Amino acid sequence: MLAIVLDMKISRIEHLGIAVPSIEEALPYYENVLGFTCYNIETVEEQKVRTAFLKVGETKIELLEPTSSESTIAKFLETRGQGIHHIAYAVEDDVKEALAECEEKGVRTIDKAPRGGAEGLSIAFLHPKSTQGVLTELCEEKK
Amino acid sequence: MLAIVLDMKISRIEHLGIAVPSIEEALPYYENVLGFTCYNIETVEEQKVRTAFLKVGETKIELLEPTSSESTIAKFLETRGQGIHHIAYAVEDDVKEALAECEEKGVRTIDKAPRGGAEGLSIAFLHPKSTQGVLTELCEEKK
Repeated sequence: MLAIVLDMKISRIEHLGIAVPSIEEALPYYENVLGFTCYNIETVEEQKVRTAFLKVGETKIELLEPTSSESTIAKFLETRGQGIHHIAYAVEDDVKEALAECEEKGVRTIDKAPRGGAEGLSIAFLHPKSTQGVLTELCEEKK
Repeated sequence: MLAIVLDMKISRIEHLGIAVPSIEEALPYYENVLGFTCYNIETVEEQKVRTAFLKVGETKIELLEPTSSESTIAKFLETRGQGIHHIAYAVEDDVKEALAECEEKGVRTIDKAPRGGAEGLSIAFLHPKSTQGVLTELCEEKK
């Protein structure tokens, strides 16, 4: 098999998505034990999740609470329990370009086009079959 | 229940531990698709793992391959499959002091005293029962 080599540039881990049954129950651990500050809570209707963001150095923790039993997060909690759900990398270029390069070079993607994620950023998920079993998100670098 | 509030200061995510059956099979993805550079591979006998480190911004990916079927990583792979195993935070103070504070304030820990991890750093694991289901490591900040 020929190695797949991408030109896409990743600058940092943008955030880590952690699935929790309840943001309210999880926050005291992240705020009081780990000492992080939650600076934003918002609902992403399209993904049927409520998200809470906490800054840690140059990256973030994104707590994900399902708002419906049909949410992929609800299904993740059912089968795997609470825990780390995905890793999101900030790409220096456009997410659209990065996705096109994945497509062209044979990296499987879940999203065929970028969509709106939390914090108004453009995002897209790669397929775990192409990412060594880790659910991986590409995320626009905040300008 | 009274909230547990710690004085421990976390500066950043030191690394993310990812369990893989084989470092050799996983590396092409991390090096060629994501574009990271593996700068160190070492075996931590005590934990029965081989580890490979790749830098991503201010944090690192640590690939964990079991060197024995008795390794906790082998057990993780069997029950959960390959994927994110733990999150390690860099603590500004001594790991020993941080552990003592956890003990004193009721945060459950797996390690009762710091032990040597990869890259010669002093580390200790907290118990998932106290960390919202996420296996969490405290790691000495590299001087």
